[in-house]
Amino acid sequence: MNALLKEIRHNPLLWLLVFVPVVFAAEHLKPEAHTLLFVLSVLAIVPLAALLSHATESVAAKTGDAVGGLLNATLGNLTELVIALAALRAGQYMLVKASIAGAIVTNTLFMLGASFLLGGLKHRVQEYNKAGARLQAGLLFLATIALLIPSAISVADSAGGAAVLSKLSVGLAVLLIVAYGLGLLFSLKTHREFFASAEGGEAGEAPWPMTLALATLAGVTVLVALVSEVFVASVQKAAETFGMSPAFVGFIVVALVGAAAEMASAFSAARKNRLDLSVGIALGSAAQIALFVAPVLVLLSYAIGPMPMDLQFWPGAVVMILIATLTATMVTNSGRSAWFVGVLLLMVYLTFAMTLYVLPPRVQ
Amino acid sequence: MNALLKEIRHNPLLWLLVFVPVVFAAEHLKPEAHTLLFVLSVLAIVPLAALLSHATESVAAKTGDAVGGLLNATLGNLTELVIALAALRAGQYMLVKASIAGAIVTNTLFMLGASFLLGGLKHRVQEYNKAGARLQAGLLFLATIALLIPSAISVADSAGGAAVLSKLSVGLAVLLIVAYGLGLLFSLKTHREFFASAEGGEAGEAPWPMTLALATLAGVTVLVALVSEVFVASVQKAAETFGMSPAFVGFIVVALVGAAAEMASAFSAARKNRLDLSVGIALGSAAQIALFVAPVLVLLSYAIGPMPMDLQFWPGAVVMILIATLTATMVTNSGRSAWFVGVLLLMVYLTFAMTLYVLPPRVQ
Amino acid sequence: MNALLKEIRHNPLLWLLVFVPVVFAAEHLKPEAHTLLFVLSVLAIVPLAALLSHATESVAAKTGDAVGGLLNATLGNLTELVIALAALRAGQYMLVKASIAGAIVTNTLFMLGASFLLGGLKHRVQEYNKAGARLQAGLLFLATIALLIPSAISVADSAGGAAVLSKLSVGLAVLLIVAYGLGLLFSLKTHREFFASAEGGEAGEAPWPMTLALATLAGVTVLVALVSEVFVASVQKAAETFGMSPAFVGFIVVALVGAAAEMASAFSAARKNRLDLSVGIALGSAAQIALFVAPVLVLLSYAIGPMPMDLQFWPGAVVMILIATLTATMVTNSGRSAWFVGVLLLMVYLTFAMTLYVLPPRVQ
Repeated sequence: MNALLKEIRHNPLLWLLVFVPVVFAAEHLKPEAHTLLFVLSVLAIVPLAALLSHATESVAAKTGDAVGGLLNATLGNLTELVIALAALRAGQYMLVKASIAGAIVTNTLFMLGASFLLGGLKHRVQEYNKAGARLQAGLLFLATIALLIPSAISVADSAGGAAVLSKLSVGLAVLLIVAYGLGLLFSLKTHREFFASAEGGEAGEAPWPMTLALATLAGVTVLVALVSEVFVASVQKAAETFGMSPAFVGFIVVALVGAAAEMASAFSAARKNRLDLSVGIALGSAAQIALFVAPVLVLLSYAIGPMPMDLQFWPGAVVMILIATLTATMVTNSGRSAWFVGVLLLMVYLTFAMTLYVLPPRVQ
Repeated sequence: MNALLKEIRHNPLLWLLVFVPVVFAAEHLKPEAHTLLFVLSVLAIVPLAALLSHATESVAAKTGDAVGGLLNATLGNLTELVIALAALRAGQYMLVKASIAGAIVTNTLFMLGASFLLGGLKHRVQEYNKAGARLQAGLLFLATIALLIPSAISVADSAGGAAVLSKLSVGLAVLLIVAYGLGLLFSLKTHREFFASAEGGEAGEAPWPMTLALATLAGVTVLVALVSEVFVASVQKAAETFGMSPAFVGFIVVALVGAAAEMASAFSAARKNRLDLSVGIALGSAAQIALFVAPVLVLLSYAIGPMPMDLQFWPGAVVMILIATLTATMVTNSGRSAWFVGVLLLMVYLTFAMTLYVLPPRVQ
Repeated sequence: MNALLKEIRHNPLLWLLVFVPVVFAAEHLKPEAHTLLFVLSVLAIVPLAALLSHATESVAAKTGDAVGGLLNATLGNLTELVIALAALRAGQYMLVKASIAGAIVTNTLFMLGASFLLGGLKHRVQEYNKAGARLQAGLLFLATIALLIPSAISVADSAGGAAVLSKLSVGLAVLLIVAYGLGLLFSLKTHREFFASAEGGEAGEAPWPMTLALATLAGVTVLVALVSEVFVASVQKAAETFGMSPAFVGFIVVALVGAAAEMASAFSAARKNRLDLSVGIALGSAAQIALFVAPVLVLLSYAIGPMPMDLQFWPGAVVMILIATLTATMVTNSGRSAWFVGVLLLMVYLTFAMTLYVLPPRVQ
């Protein structure tokens, strides 16, 4: 418990934990203050995500490489998954899909771009493991292709009944999860030396004892789930107040909130000239969303959602995901980076954000 | 003749030749048993394609490198061409186009993916000639771009009269054939050392004497043509019986049947760690379909078809071809492979197959 | 002045300057002879563009590297900008957008392809600086992505009111110009050694004295502006006479005319086996159109156009720009070239030209 308190004292991000009780109090006292609840829940999720991330790494560090890698790979996007589950239960499929698409785009453009920029401002030219980056970018590209095929085909055809689409989505979800399992076998077992993320972890932060880590993992997951409920319930109304479209909220706000902890790691690695790690976190996390989080949500929608969710994304999201993964593939191909590469990735991200912000809700 | 019999005795694939007389008998006795005729004709085409392939290589081996390469390059997709001609004469343009699109997709995703998987299960990491693969992937990419431009533009515009489209298709067909001719000049004459496929041929299989090879080439082509007629006549009804859409049949079934012989070569090369050859066969064959088979079919439609055929593909096919060639370009860019890369290529192929299987016929 | 006359005597291209007075005389005498005026104005613009290009380089050579590079980068596409401004003032937004799209496509496919072909006919395999080409191709790719996002999203959605689009276009224009400024900082200041175009200039041509260069720059810009007015006024009617669609004129004719001078430099560098320079001119010029010329035109449309111009391109143009930049990125990725690569790039360009030529005007 001391370790937890020490961590909190040294990490200013965790001071935001004070908003966790505040959000529950506010929800009880002012259930109609949607904008307030929205802001408070965002502020509360960020430190919880950081704790979750640290707890996962601590468990991973104690359990040895194979199991640890598996844990890291599976729980790395736990925050995104829990938020999406809350939205799924509330039947807000538009928000679920926007947050899936947004997580892929945010990881590949914003997280990668900001890592390149922050690293490049300190180091003139940064080299990173070309082979590993190419392999990961290739996996990401193929994963998102598989995820998007039903949308791409249907978009092009502008037809296809709902029944066909749900059948296809379930088949595809199973296929993606099988591919994810084989990918873990590949990256953790048969060809682990190609994957930089296994090597690292955050140097300098000591892992917690096992009991603390497991307790934190369990407790914080519950807290994230509870805060996510508030978040999902308030987001629609709050977005209207801020003049944001629902797509903007799901795509940009949820994605940035959910990935805050991973971003902290990626940026810090980039500043330390360990771009292998930054690229690994950004591309690995995006691939995990496509291969694991998205299909799990489709399958769970049969159990906990009001109706089955399919994998049909709105056309603009398809274009953005394709452009984002294509860009990441091209940019990481050379194995070297400078600050302006980061600027351009961020510029593409900004363009997406700007477009989503001004688009009228009905066309999304 | 002994060489032919010996070949048949040692190659279990050729035992399927027994289905050649069976299919003709069945067509005479039960002309209405479409499903039976479909299955029999598929079983008969596979060994004929293998014979055709071996005969082409034997002639090529005897005629020296330049003429041999030309023969190999021109007759390598003879089976696909003959099947497509049968469909063309029957006026089944949907089937012709689906088989063109399917051949490109099957070669770049299934043949390449299965080669990587089969090779990767035996060899940890396989390296292959990066420069050659890049050059071939580049040619393939540009060839398919040129092939798809009218569809891509018209898709986007959702307009453009039939007259304009046929004029454009003929002009484009001539352009593609000119590019194909220049490509042969390039790969067989001025820059032949970059193309691995020239070097190899199937080691271990002795070439046949010239007379036998030529006779086999002529005789088997006639047989393939006759069986293809049965195949094309039965495929529509049989597909309905199996619950397959026409697009699925053209895209997946015809493409797999037509490329069976080349796949055997590519897979065997991959197992022998000669990925250069596998990649060369897969990409070269796909490029040949785009640059040679497709435009020849457009031009021949004026002579033997009931009406001119254009190069307008249905939108889903455009998306699939673009994704397939883009994927092949990206994946072969690194010059190295491991089993999971094969899994991902196959997964994309499976996704395509699944989508085509469930799509209602009217949207194709 | 002697330097100018000597230049004119030795450069046959400049003999075309005789058409400058001819075009003004013809406009005065036969204002209705649109076809004649169109041909004369094209013939007059080509040598003026060459003079402009030489004058810019001369000023750049005298002012030192940083300012010179800035001048070269900003005035390199002055001809295109002046022609587009004339079209903008005349309210011909279709022509403006077609010439933006056409300049990107012509630089990446025609200029690069012809450089590869001309260089490849003389040199067997040409190697060029891989890192520099990749960086430039990456910048170009991201720049065009940013430029196209509103069109891509709106195309996909087939919705989005005009008001939203103009707001988005202005925001985007500002973003692109900021990126352009940062790009200059990057390529001229912090990382200049990666950019080949800084090193070269046309060897063999002595720079002019400063006064002559500045006077030529000012005088010729005015002449280009005046001739462009004639060109823009006559192009529509002339196109009808030649049976060309307006898109074909903007995309192909204007782009070739505007880039004539740069092409002469790129081709001559390719023949001298200095492909770094050719690739730099082609990709750099395309990137400049996307990052600088296009947004400047959007912003200027508020000042000098009859109404605001947005960044919504017609769908076919979006497809062509995306394919062109993707192709350039892939092709320059290997850092080596041979003649057939040039043939394929030119083939894709020809396909575009053919498609635009036959397309009925209403679908553009």
